[in-house]
Amino acid sequence: MAVNKPSIPKGTRDFSPLEMARRNYIFDTIRSVFRLYGFQQIETPAMENLSTLMGKYGDEGDKLLFKILNSGEFLSSVEQADLENRAQSKVLKQISEKGLRYDLTVPFARFVVMNRDKISFPFKRYQIQPVWRADKPQKGRYREFYQCDVDIVGSTSLVNEVELLQITDEVYRRLKINVVVKINNRKILAGIAESIGEADKIVDITVAIDKLDKIGLDNVNAELASKGISEDAIAKLQPIITLSGTNEEKLETISKVLAGSEIGQKGIEEMKTIFSYTNALNLATPIELDLTLARGLNYYTGAIFEVKALDVQIGSITGGGRYDNLTSVFGMPDVSGVGISFGADRIYDVMTQLDLYPSDALRSTKLLFVTFGDKELSFAINKIREVRAAGISAEVFPEPAKMKKQMGYADSRSIPFVAIVGETEMAEDKVMLKNMATGEQKLVSIDDAISIVKA
Amino acid sequence: MAVNKPSIPKGTRDFSPLEMARRNYIFDTIRSVFRLYGFQQIETPAMENLSTLMGKYGDEGDKLLFKILNSGEFLSSVEQADLENRAQSKVLKQISEKGLRYDLTVPFARFVVMNRDKISFPFKRYQIQPVWRADKPQKGRYREFYQCDVDIVGSTSLVNEVELLQITDEVYRRLKINVVVKINNRKILAGIAESIGEADKIVDITVAIDKLDKIGLDNVNAELASKGISEDAIAKLQPIITLSGTNEEKLETISKVLAGSEIGQKGIEEMKTIFSYTNALNLATPIELDLTLARGLNYYTGAIFEVKALDVQIGSITGGGRYDNLTSVFGMPDVSGVGISFGADRIYDVMTQLDLYPSDALRSTKLLFVTFGDKELSFAINKIREVRAAGISAEVFPEPAKMKKQMGYADSRSIPFVAIVGETEMAEDKVMLKNMATGEQKLVSIDDAISIVKA
Repeated sequence: MAVNKPSIPKGTRDFSPLEMARRNYIFDTIRSVFRLYGFQQIETPAMENLSTLMGKYGDEGDKLLFKILNSGEFLSSVEQADLENRAQSKVLKQISEKGLRYDLTVPFARFVVMNRDKISFPFKRYQIQPVWRADKPQKGRYREFYQCDVDIVGSTSLVNEVELLQITDEVYRRLKINVVVKINNRKILAGIAESIGEADKIVDITVAIDKLDKIGLDNVNAELASKGISEDAIAKLQPIITLSGTNEEKLETISKVLAGSEIGQKGIEEMKTIFSYTNALNLATPIELDLTLARGLNYYTGAIFEVKALDVQIGSITGGGRYDNLTSVFGMPDVSGVGISFGADRIYDVMTQLDLYPSDALRSTKLLFVTFGDKELSFAINKIREVRAAGISAEVFPEPAKMKKQMGYADSRSIPFVAIVGETEMAEDKVMLKNMATGEQKLVSIDDAISIVKA
Repeated sequence: MAVNKPSIPKGTRDFSPLEMARRNYIFDTIRSVFRLYGFQQIETPAMENLSTLMGKYGDEGDKLLFKILNSGEFLSSVEQADLENRAQSKVLKQISEKGLRYDLTVPFARFVVMNRDKISFPFKRYQIQPVWRADKPQKGRYREFYQCDVDIVGSTSLVNEVELLQITDEVYRRLKINVVVKINNRKILAGIAESIGEADKIVDITVAIDKLDKIGLDNVNAELASKGISEDAIAKLQPIITLSGTNEEKLETISKVLAGSEIGQKGIEEMKTIFSYTNALNLATPIELDLTLARGLNYYTGAIFEVKALDVQIGSITGGGRYDNLTSVFGMPDVSGVGISFGADRIYDVMTQLDLYPSDALRSTKLLFVTFGDKELSFAINKIREVRAAGISAEVFPEPAKMKKQMGYADSRSIPFVAIVGETEMAEDKVMLKNMATGEQKLVSIDDAISIVKA
């Protein structure tokens, strides 16, 4: 075999022990909150049939799917003419039937439809798995990344929206990240488009409004005009775009504007209900009605959420909303659901930048046995059993190497205590316990060493 | 979008909440033992460059790799002649550069080489991730399955072999699976081949001997003859194949047979050292020297292990061994390592067949609030906070549906307690707590409900 200098595909990452410890801290925190709220985990395969994935994420999404080559003689059944003419999309259909998961939502919808007879609704599920997108890699954007999704399907109750807000509040309190939740409602956005006489331009309107923070009011208005929104309609939009005040004040103002819109009034009612619950719950996280929040995905039909970190400049770190028709594409209509997705990679960046990891979460081994001969090594292998039986992660350096090498290993691994075993220690059935931070060392029994390391 | 009846690719699986709870119990147990022994987790990407994967698993392995189609205009740079001639392997190289991980060992070797300057050796790493193989699916064999690998690289000490045996013992004691560890040594096998004058036929010999359990001694001898092993050599093999007695007795007998083989004597010395440690440690798991154990993978160079479950008919559920040259193919020679891999899917089958899951591990939500109106629902949403603050997984049924529906949900989810909230309960600031197993119910405060559910 020829020796090759190894590399990994662009846009993918290895995770080192330190990075894994940090990631595990984030995943464990999120998972434990999901469980506390009674959500159940599922997993779906990395590979899905392309018939499941294609057409669900728009034309751009279809292109960004990683497609898997059929196994075996993949070329044997391809039409000769298609090969000769390089008819790419025709060839693709004949050589690839599977693709990698692009998000967790479509596989979840497929799962619900395939298991509809076994599921007790409302179905509260969570799913933490990687997804793959053939996006151009850039800072903070990877071709393999994790999503942490939590959804309730089979219930139209707004209590579910409230529960997702509670979960958001609890996750970020535990992670010690200061955040604000921005909330809006697709029905209000539809009402706005309707009431300014541009119901069919709702997408253009929301896309333009969504940019207010970035490009400012004048540019938003210019974009609206360029999309063919009438001057009159743009004028009517102004008080909505620049709305300020408390959530209740905003709802009151918008309610007047949307007086004639049935769907708009429905959206306002939904928001009032949600706020009445969240106000009573006294959540630590501020929840702000933001009428310029739109979110890209077409399948949302009710409340939509986004979470922004307050102390770091970064995009949304969590987002989601209510959808009414996710499973209908797989033949199961009328299943309403609501869900949010925690962006683990962005949360990681925020936590790392603000140095929010508790030092205990990053430390693995607490005690290393260092020995100077085969007898001492046997002694240590025997004694370490008591340390591990006490639940303490511990190691024996596997050979009686030079002191410097063994201590260097403890240093590089940030192991806080070292138990040195020499002839004297063995004779007294003790170890020389060294605190690596202070340099202090004393001769103690294994029981005492355990107490000290545990403290 | 046309409605399509959904399915998943053959050989892949969805995991339901119950299956996930079982799997998590297994993974959590294995992971906690790995951590207790000071191993650190890494993860590598699902996709590797084909240059990393190809040629590492033999011709058959190359075929079983799932290959990923290049993104974008994948056909545009393919030679016209290769397309017209359907030159499959030439076309493959031009349309695919990446493949899915086939095992965790090759990516780990690549990781070590790429991170050699950052790693403190000996490097004790564990890795729990799925792998993909385009094998023909059959009962118990999947195209996506998990491996749980634990390896120490950068140390030739046999203490590492001993530690892996301790880990095996601890994992299976915690999982309550009765197992036996079969152990052998590639150096002894090499010595046997050498001493019977058939050093170059070591693979044929080990493959044939490996089948003793399945096909019996006569058929093993017939196979040996068919591979061109001389009658004389086969006669010399007989006492080795049929060897019985304690590990020490076996080593003594084989030592005489291998008197003239340097490598054979080295293997015997290694086994003596390993047994001297494991005997002193009094492991609960029996460890049996089995000279017919060979294991397929060519990269093993020292001790090899396999774990068999005693109470279920199933192949090996854990296996591994010592390798001396894993990283040399990536340009880093002389890194010895030893590792084992726990087969999560087979362990799952054993645990399920023997019903070994503790019922607590499979239960998620402990308490469900059932309400009959919006006021009661608000009351419950307020009260459940105290339950969750006490660390109890709890849910509120998200709408005041019919009693039967809400109780049916509790039943189907195996939720052990229900807190019923009606007008009377609210008036007294209490809930009617029902034990779903006994049917018993009583009016209690939230604090009392918490104590009862916790008990």
